[in-house]
Amino acid sequence: MTHRIALIPGDGIGAEVMPSALRCLEALSRRPGLNFEFTDFPYSCEYYARHGVMMPADGIEQLRPHDAILLGAVGYPGVPDHVSLWGLLLPIRREFGQYVNLRPVRLLRGLTSALRDRGPEDINYLVVRENNEGEYSDIGGRMYDGLPEAMAIQANVITRKGSERILDYAFRLAESRARQTLAYATKSNGIKHSMPFWDEQVAGMAPRYPAVNVEQYHVDILAANLVTHPDWFDVIVGTNLFGDILSDLGPATAGGIGVAPSANINPDPGVPSMFEPVHGSAPDIAGQDIANPIAMIWTVVMMLEHLNENDAATDLMSALEAVTGEGKVMTRDLGGTAGTVEFTDRVLAELG
Amino acid sequence: MTHRIALIPGDGIGAEVMPSALRCLEALSRRPGLNFEFTDFPYSCEYYARHGVMMPADGIEQLRPHDAILLGAVGYPGVPDHVSLWGLLLPIRREFGQYVNLRPVRLLRGLTSALRDRGPEDINYLVVRENNEGEYSDIGGRMYDGLPEAMAIQANVITRKGSERILDYAFRLAESRARQTLAYATKSNGIKHSMPFWDEQVAGMAPRYPAVNVEQYHVDILAANLVTHPDWFDVIVGTNLFGDILSDLGPATAGGIGVAPSANINPDPGVPSMFEPVHGSAPDIAGQDIANPIAMIWTVVMMLEHLNENDAATDLMSALEAVTGEGKVMTRDLGGTAGTVEFTDRVLAELG
Ligand SMILES: CC(C)[C@H](C(=O)O)[C@@H](O)C(=O)O
Ligand SMILES: CC(C)[C@H](C(=O)O)[C@@H](O)C(=O)O
Repeated sequence: MTHRIALIPGDGIGAEVMPSALRCLEALSRRPGLNFEFTDFPYSCEYYARHGVMMPADGIEQLRPHDAILLGAVGYPGVPDHVSLWGLLLPIRREFGQYVNLRPVRLLRGLTSALRDRGPEDINYLVVRENNEGEYSDIGGRMYDGLPEAMAIQANVITRKGSERILDYAFRLAESRARQTLAYATKSNGIKHSMPFWDEQVAGMAPRYPAVNVEQYHVDILAANLVTHPDWFDVIVGTNLFGDILSDLGPATAGGIGVAPSANINPDPGVPSMFEPVHGSAPDIAGQDIANPIAMIWTVVMMLEHLNENDAATDLMSALEAVTGEGKVMTRDLGGTAGTVEFTDRVLAELG
Repeated sequence: MTHRIALIPGDGIGAEVMPSALRCLEALSRRPGLNFEFTDFPYSCEYYARHGVMMPADGIEQLRPHDAILLGAVGYPGVPDHVSLWGLLLPIRREFGQYVNLRPVRLLRGLTSALRDRGPEDINYLVVRENNEGEYSDIGGRMYDGLPEAMAIQANVITRKGSERILDYAFRLAESRARQTLAYATKSNGIKHSMPFWDEQVAGMAPRYPAVNVEQYHVDILAANLVTHPDWFDVIVGTNLFGDILSDLGPATAGGIGVAPSANINPDPGVPSMFEPVHGSAPDIAGQDIANPIAMIWTVVMMLEHLNENDAATDLMSALEAVTGEGKVMTRDLGGTAGTVEFTDRVLAELG
């Protein structure tokens, strides 16, 4: 069986860590029965500079017949976010119904937490972020623009269908884990309409998963607890914005944004899911071979799991963690001296 | 001159730390020229149990003729948040136009940060939270409730007037500090209508404060940076929700929620501002003399500053930090054994 993978290296360090991913995948494909067919898509800010769009009008259709999309990062100085993100990243997430944004937060062996006295046994949870609706809705606008009375209104849209599918995913995930604990982020003590509705969807689903302990946290306290009590958490589910914040905060306690992977998943096998490191294109450090490829390699592990290539996934993750655990070859953001290529070499050597 | 102070002890540990505040204020009022007139308001969940409302219909009018309101905390199990908060806390903030929520984050001497290798010199910033509009708007509702098509829409309302007044406050504050740096939280790369408007208000105001370095952070990255680089920050301004999250996260790195003070300010002297610790009523630890009074005592310091009693404010803060710095008498949440009363005794002894 051949997995058809669409590659979007993108901009900056996105394009620099993509070769690390490909080298890992090529090494794994030497195994019998594991095959990939890669198609390159140049969609990026550079593409935008030449064509005036981030991807062609039929870009989504070109991506559709793939089993997965692997993305580096997009964004470049001078290209406004609403162009680079709303022209590529967000449409892919939404048009393919990738309603789950799954972001593991785990302190890899050998890495030092920014938290005092915290080790790998203390930081090990999954952030499940709703990825299609909520605070990121397109609905809203302005009135009296330019006048003293100017105002903007942004609608936050939470649907029962959108909530149930993400909550169902989160409950199942929590049920499958040893601790069977699901924390959900809300702010129903302050935000009057959307958040009580969200709480009700959680309450409505809980009886279907009697084994799961459900814990409610207001998002402010939850953020604080990720610092003071990371060991309390197992699976955390949140709306689009809350999931976004918590899944950047979590990695900050676990080696930084340079190691954090993510998966944008539509569990329906008929459409591609997308895998991307949490970090951005980081133009300030691009082109110097200093980007940390850990996030990208871990992202590849998540893609392999999604493709049901569990042995390959396990072996790649073990190789990665063997290297961090040993600590001899480490990237600069983690206190070492190794470049992107050298670190990847070491992982490949370990992978054998 | 006599300062008329409205006291709302509230529920749980709110009512337990209020005596600590009063003892400090009484000690200070032995000084010539410093006088307080206290009026007690029993507004609380207990009041609700007896009267069916958190405060009487003319509650706001009863509070109005005061120079400041000092609040413990409200909330009690069995009383839903929308009753306890929307019936008391949020109306006070909004009806008195307390549009500034000021929350200092500073690691007091003697306290240990949850962050590795971080000391008092690394954590010292002010979170300025917009306190009246934004994500906490009343506008919104539901459709198809109870049906599979159910949805809720929450409007986030950002006005130019509301933004300008909070930004003006934040810019002035940044200008007055040594580092003259203002970081603002946004999410204009993902949230299409409200956040670009907010960014424009910041950009529009910046030229009026040429001495201030303005730095833009998306809220997810900002949250991460409060963990990895707290030393980067001086003054941080954010919308109601972003300010809420960041001002709980910050204290988590600086001794915990038990030490965090806050001020809800309307700079217009004609209406009372309100001072309250960031922590809630914590019913789980109430009634045991173990609540940490530091947040409340520091809140009193903020109130004294607001009342222009700067000597008294400085002396009380010095006494508090002398006690934490010495570290002999410490509350349980900070690793000591002292109760609420014993810790307060020690501060009073230091105050002389
Ligand atoms: C209790 C809640 C409504 C409140 C808020 O979000 O404003 C609290 O978290 C705070 O920060 O004062
Ligand atoms: C770049 C931005 C739109 C994006 C988001 O908020 O979804 C990013 O922060 C992420 O988390 O993938």
